[in-house]
Amino acid sequence: MSVTAPKGFSAAGVAAGLKSSGAPDVAVVLNHGPDDTAAAVFTTNRFPAAPVLWSRQVLAGERARAVVLNSGGANACTGPEGFQDTHATAEHAAAELGIGAIDVAVASTGLIGVRLPMAKLTAGITTAVEALSEDGGPDAARAIMTTDSVPKTTVQARGGPDGGWTVGGMAKGAGMLAPSLATMLVVLTTDAVVDAGTLQEALRQASGVSFERVDSDGCLSTNDTVIVLSSGASGVTPPAGEVTEALTAACTDLAMQLLADAEGSTKDIAITVRNAASVADALTAGRACARNNLLKTALFGNDPNWGRVLAAIGTTDAAFEPDRVDVTINGVTVCRGGAIGDPREGVDLTGRAITIDVDLRAGGEQATIWTNDLSVAYVHENSAYST
Amino acid sequence: MSVTAPKGFSAAGVAAGLKSSGAPDVAVVLNHGPDDTAAAVFTTNRFPAAPVLWSRQVLAGERARAVVLNSGGANACTGPEGFQDTHATAEHAAAELGIGAIDVAVASTGLIGVRLPMAKLTAGITTAVEALSEDGGPDAARAIMTTDSVPKTTVQARGGPDGGWTVGGMAKGAGMLAPSLATMLVVLTTDAVVDAGTLQEALRQASGVSFERVDSDGCLSTNDTVIVLSSGASGVTPPAGEVTEALTAACTDLAMQLLADAEGSTKDIAITVRNAASVADALTAGRACARNNLLKTALFGNDPNWGRVLAAIGTTDAAFEPDRVDVTINGVTVCRGGAIGDPREGVDLTGRAITIDVDLRAGGEQATIWTNDLSVAYVHENSAYST
Repeated sequence: MSVTAPKGFSAAGVAAGLKSSGAPDVAVVLNHGPDDTAAAVFTTNRFPAAPVLWSRQVLAGERARAVVLNSGGANACTGPEGFQDTHATAEHAAAELGIGAIDVAVASTGLIGVRLPMAKLTAGITTAVEALSEDGGPDAARAIMTTDSVPKTTVQARGGPDGGWTVGGMAKGAGMLAPSLATMLVVLTTDAVVDAGTLQEALRQASGVSFERVDSDGCLSTNDTVIVLSSGASGVTPPAGEVTEALTAACTDLAMQLLADAEGSTKDIAITVRNAASVADALTAGRACARNNLLKTALFGNDPNWGRVLAAIGTTDAAFEPDRVDVTINGVTVCRGGAIGDPREGVDLTGRAITIDVDLRAGGEQATIWTNDLSVAYVHENSAYST
Repeated sequence: MSVTAPKGFSAAGVAAGLKSSGAPDVAVVLNHGPDDTAAAVFTTNRFPAAPVLWSRQVLAGERARAVVLNSGGANACTGPEGFQDTHATAEHAAAELGIGAIDVAVASTGLIGVRLPMAKLTAGITTAVEALSEDGGPDAARAIMTTDSVPKTTVQARGGPDGGWTVGGMAKGAGMLAPSLATMLVVLTTDAVVDAGTLQEALRQASGVSFERVDSDGCLSTNDTVIVLSSGASGVTPPAGEVTEALTAACTDLAMQLLADAEGSTKDIAITVRNAASVADALTAGRACARNNLLKTALFGNDPNWGRVLAAIGTTDAAFEPDRVDVTINGVTVCRGGAIGDPREGVDLTGRAITIDVDLRAGGEQATIWTNDLSVAYVHENSAYST
């Protein structure tokens, strides 16, 4: 049910002709209230796309009634004209919905540096608003796909029969997956009653341990957007901790779906750095592995090349003594004390899931970064994307 | 003539059976003097290979008489036993040459995390010492190749008929090419009379603007070594500036050969960042592009995807205003003021050479980073390397 699983929301996804394939490319998510509390996190890229600039303004008020999303064009690096396009998008949706433009967040995905075909887009919004439905969540999730092979949705139900509330969500993202954020558009919805401060903090925490720890290809997008809308329609006001837990579950579920569908990937790789002096050190070391092309190609080739793990973390400033580091790949400790451990021939890498455990023996903290291998298909998909 | 172009040097390259292919894999370079001044720069990776640890000790004395190099095994991450292997290598070569072990630098390249077959290596050193010749430079250059498709050598002659002196050099490197250093083994020789301090400073400067600005795949090796040996056999003492100039010419020549032979590459890409607030900013922005897999796959696909250039530099902290940045690819200014410029269809990317000019309009400094595209062949070569 995606974003329409919680009470108080409708959604739609339609084909507006932005994609040459004719696949759905415009989605609208509407919050019917009674509340319209909202929170968001956006890309930290210094070239934020026009819809990011616009939606930051919307979310500054901690409220939003609707989100309009399109695939088939990122509207990034399009200058003042691109911003006017986004503004016009929000104005058009607002008029159709009978609300104010400042209540409408916008998110776009697709090729950078190309203007959107506005006539097609506004016509599509009109069609989408007419199609809004309490069952429209799955359609919306399909309309935001780009190179995604499957739509990504989540539903997290919480509370008992007398006090039930729900978080729903949808995500798109298959390339440019690096924090923070992993590249993507995400809309989360909840019918819990949540004040804006609690919602923002819960989203920040949830995103921090999920999307921001997926580093598929090290490339940070100009359009990353995660928005959460709260309708309050359940009438239930859960404790802040429960909101954070449910949002974290939803974000983690979506993040793992993004990872599994990363462009051209054949492996899902969890790199856990243990016994680090700090979480920051663990993340630094894990990220260095996640971004090492030689390690990622080796794993594509089913080669447990632990030397490339050490070479990667050896470029970081994380605290460790080189002769105390252990590396375990899929349960086999192939490196002990920075030197040769158990035979690498014992490592079975034929499955899709790979775990790499790096023990720094430098403290008590740990963190996991998720990434993918670097495959021939990744190169193929990304060398042909805009042509 | 490679390392034997200057007076006072002999070299050899032989097949010792370290490579299963039977190709040459052991090289020796000997300095016959009268001087034995030497300088070096080594990898900054925190897992330096055993030969790096050893050679640092040798070079600490600012002298070296010989360099023993092997391909077919990096002797990295091999623990105390690996260091003993390197020490034994130097001891064996020293005995054969009638010099002290502390006069013998060692450099190794190949798979990380595997012990060297010492009986084969020492037998190969004996053979190489017997084969030492004033014409042996080319053989030595061939013996240090791994995935290199061609040997890399350089000769820089300086001075007039009455005061001529020469710099010779050889390099290996095709993968793990990132600074600092670009991954590689390099031996430079000169018959100029140079004091140790001048030689070290000249090498530092030469390496800084050549090898350290090649960033082929962002991966920093455990074995990078650049050693320069001075025999003084020309009897000419050039000014320090001329030594730096000649070493820079030699290093740049070798660096461009490394770039042209990078594993699986189909493009040589020069990223020049102009009008930066500092050289450091220019290097940071250039390196962000050089390490962006989406940009590199786009260029492999002949796609002038300037949005990925902006997305890459947008992740850095270099000083610039996003709406003032221009990007020119092969002479076409496809992005102006952070937005759409001339039509991307005008960019011809069918040749091997690609120039990307990023104008930050934030100051007066500039720097160039050289990189390669990310190709299907890169993935193939590096997924099969150790298997």
